[in-house]
Formats: sequence, structure tokens, C-alpha cells
Amino acid sequence: MSSTPSSHAGWLRIVGLGPGDGTLITPQVHASIADATDALGYFPYVERLQAEGHLSTHIRLHASDNREEIARARHALQLAASGARVLMLSSGDPGVFAMAAAVFEALDTAAEADKNTWLQVSIEVQPGITAMLAAAARLGAPLGHDFCAINLSDNLKPWPIIEQRLRLAAQADFAMAFYNPRSQSRPTGFMRTLDVLRECCEPQRLIAFARNTSRIDERLVVCTLAEATPEMADMRTLVIVGSSQTRRIGPHIYTPRSYPELPHSTP
Amino acid sequence: MSSTPSSHAGWLRIVGLGPGDGTLITPQVHASIADATDALGYFPYVERLQAEGHLSTHIRLHASDNREEIARARHALQLAASGARVLMLSSGDPGVFAMAAAVFEALDTAAEADKNTWLQVSIEVQPGITAMLAAAARLGAPLGHDFCAINLSDNLKPWPIIEQRLRLAAQADFAMAFYNPRSQSRPTGFMRTLDVLRECCEPQRLIAFARNTSRIDERLVVCTLAEATPEMADMRTLVIVGSSQTRRIGPHIYTPRSYPELPHSTP
Repeated sequence: MSSTPSSHAGWLRIVGLGPGDGTLITPQVHASIADATDALGYFPYVERLQAEGHLSTHIRLHASDNREEIARARHALQLAASGARVLMLSSGDPGVFAMAAAVFEALDTAAEADKNTWLQVSIEVQPGITAMLAAAARLGAPLGHDFCAINLSDNLKPWPIIEQRLRLAAQADFAMAFYNPRSQSRPTGFMRTLDVLRECCEPQRLIAFARNTSRIDERLVVCTLAEATPEMADMRTLVIVGSSQTRRIGPHIYTPRSYPELPHSTP
Repeated sequence: MSSTPSSHAGWLRIVGLGPGDGTLITPQVHASIADATDALGYFPYVERLQAEGHLSTHIRLHASDNREEIARARHALQLAASGARVLMLSSGDPGVFAMAAAVFEALDTAAEADKNTWLQVSIEVQPGITAMLAAAARLGAPLGHDFCAINLSDNLKPWPIIEQRLRLAAQADFAMAFYNPRSQSRPTGFMRTLDVLRECCEPQRLIAFARNTSRIDERLVVCTLAEATPEMADMRTLVIVGSSQTRRIGPHIYTPRSYPELPHSTP
């Protein structure tokens, strides 16, 4: 096998590396890593694969910063269109608040000449264990009934949208998983999130903070909404808020499969 | 290694087998399969592992029907408490409309004597690729922005709850993933679901039907809400409804990461 790309064999595979533990990377993704000529990604993901010895020595690495998703996606499409076998590395699952949507956005918004070329590229998304499922597994089964996933970052959407979704999700009595709850550049959003939840949910509602799930420094905290503070979350934390039915049993929390009655009148 | 259980080494691992393709089973789950003395599960899952050669010959198999989740969970807890190393097989991810919640329910509702014994058992949930993420990956990135997951079966919850959640999810402009959309014993629920969606969403809203994702007979259909019919779904279909922002690009559909403005006034 040569590492020189042939113009007919190019592809782009957007692969999910899971939450951190190497035993949670699927064999499908490992096979793609072994076949690729080029790997693009946020630099910690590239470094992680290198450190764990998953990357062959001839693979070309293109690490970049985490505010450069569209530029990275264009670069990947360009390389694949020229015949390279390109990996786009994503943590968790590429389709959940990660690189897959960015690649399709880059394709959709490309200049016409690029778009026509790039539409010929074989693009495949290879799923991974997303943070919310890894965290839920460690906690018990808090997402065992209907649930929603909300990205709490307001970098790409207005805050009122987030707040409206929180209120509607509480009214629907979904369990909720929050990605990107809090960062240094967004110190107040999660405080506002807790305020909204306290308006909509009872104080004993269970809330769980899963930091660095599956890694050596994993930290799991379960408490009530009344006990929760903004500082319990950061960018490495996945937050799960139970529904009104979520319960503790021993060290675990779970949401029963059955649901008793209407929590609110139909709006 | 002996297959005779020792009373100190018992465990219960609830493992996710993913959507069907063997290359989507994590190495973590494979390691548990190799270590187990007993495997319980819905009989097609047990048969699948046998057919694919993943089960050692000395493992004890306990296949059961799919309406017997709580009995199966009790049996698993009993075996593990007596020292067996027990696998509970689940398709997809065990935490999403699957066996993990049933095991914690069985523990929570057990008679006191059983509960005290069973609470000593090491219970671990090992995540897998759930149907919605496998389907989304094959379709593009329809779950690239905020989304929800709803089990459309009304076996364990009243239909009005489902209908209320559909309306609130549409108002929140979540993309939606539907599990168990339609079965022979529930022929009309998905028709009612489409009716509710047509009241809440525009006719051009994208809807996708992913049947037997990742298997040899996989079938993917994308159409508009106006074009969708109840017959497009069955129990082997995962349905994804886009948000108002979900778009087509070439053969793919995706939901952009950014969100422009409020779709509705705050309720």
C-alpha cells in the first residue's frame, strides 16, 4: 500500500473517537485510521491518537485549533478531492455537536466550482460513543426514557433560543443532556440555565455532573437541583438533568421506562 | 479460567451491541463477552452473537422474549449475586430505550431481601452505538444541532404524553429521533404522529426513515413531511425528523450548527 494518493481512491471519513477510553473506539474507526493518508482534527485529538500509538508513521497530520472548524472542513474536502484518504477526527460521535455538521456546512456553502468537485467526494460519517451516552452509562440509566440533548454554548445561537428550549424541554418532562455547559469565555450561561431549571422543576430534581467520563481522572457527582452550583460544570463536563421520574437506587440513577400520567395539562 | 462462578467474582454487565454491524461493537464489550459465564438477552441478540462466533462454547445462554424484560433483569441479578459473570445483551446502547433502565427498575422494585443482596452486585453499563446515531451517520448530520429522542411506543406510557412531547419538541424546534415508531400491535400511532407533526411543522420539513441501519439490507429514505406515509416505518425503522433548519446537500442531510433567530415567541 502506497501513501501517495490516487485521484480515484480519495475519501473523507469523519470518525468518532468516543469519550476518551481507547476500548470505546469501534473497530470500524480503527480500520479507517489504518487506511488513511491524512488526519485532520483539533490538536488534542490528533495528539491523543499519536500518544496511544494508533497512527502509522507515514500519515500526514494536520492539527488545528477549535474555532477553525469550517476551514478545517474545507481543507479536508480539498485533500479528499485530490485523491487523499482523509480522516476528520472528532471526539465522541461526529454527528453530535461535533465535526460532521461542519463538513456538510462547508460543502453546502462552498463556491460553485469547489462544490461541484467536492460533491464527488465519498464522505462517510463513522459513529462513536457520544459523551451523553458514556456519562449515562457510568451513572446508571438516566436517559432510559424520552430525553433531549442541548448544546449550552451560545457561540452559534442566540441565548433566548437556549432558554426557550430549556423551558419547553422541562414542560415536556424530558431528561436533558447538556453539552458545553460552561467555559471561561461564557461564565454565566450555566448559572442562567440553573435559574431557568429552578423555575420549571422541583428542588429535588436530580442533576448529574460527569467530567472526563471514562478517563483516568473521571469525576461523577449526583445531587439535587437545589444543591447544584455553576462551578460544578466546566467544558469537560457533561451535565444530565433527570426528568420528574428519575430516581436513585444504590449508587445509580435511572429513569423508569414507564410514565404514569400527564405532568402538565396539554398546552 | 473456570466457568464455575465464585461468589466473590460475580458481576452484571449490561452491554450495547450497536445497530447490527459487528465492526460497531466496542472492544470494551468484546472483552466482557469473552469474560462472561452467562449471557441473557432477547433471543435474536443471543443468536446473533452465536452466529457471528463471538460466544465461547462454555458460556451459558438464557434467551427470552421481548416482553419479559423485568423477569430477565431479575434473573440476571440473581445469577450475578450467586457469583456468575453475567452479560445482559442489549441492541444499540443499553441506556437508550433498552435493558439498562429495566435492570435498575428490577433492583429498585425487588423484595427487601433480594434488594439487599442485589445491591452488593457490581453492575456496569457498557455503552454502544444507539440506532439514532448510526442512522444519523448514514444520513449525514441531521442531529448536528439540539435534538430529542422519543420512544413512540405507548405500551409503557399514555398516548397523550407522547402527543404533548411531540408538540413541545416541534415548538422547541428540536430535530427528533423516533424509536419503535410502528408495530403490528400499534398500527395507528405513527399515523397520529405524522398528523401532529403536520399541524406543527411546514410541509417541506425533512423526514428520514432508516431501516436496519448498518446491516446488509439497510434501507434509507429521505422525503418531506408532506410525502411521508405511515407505511414507511416499522419496528426495524428509526425515524429522524429534521428541525426547521435541516437541509439537503447532495445525497446528505444535515442540521447546521448555528441557529438564526427565534422560531416562535417564548411561550
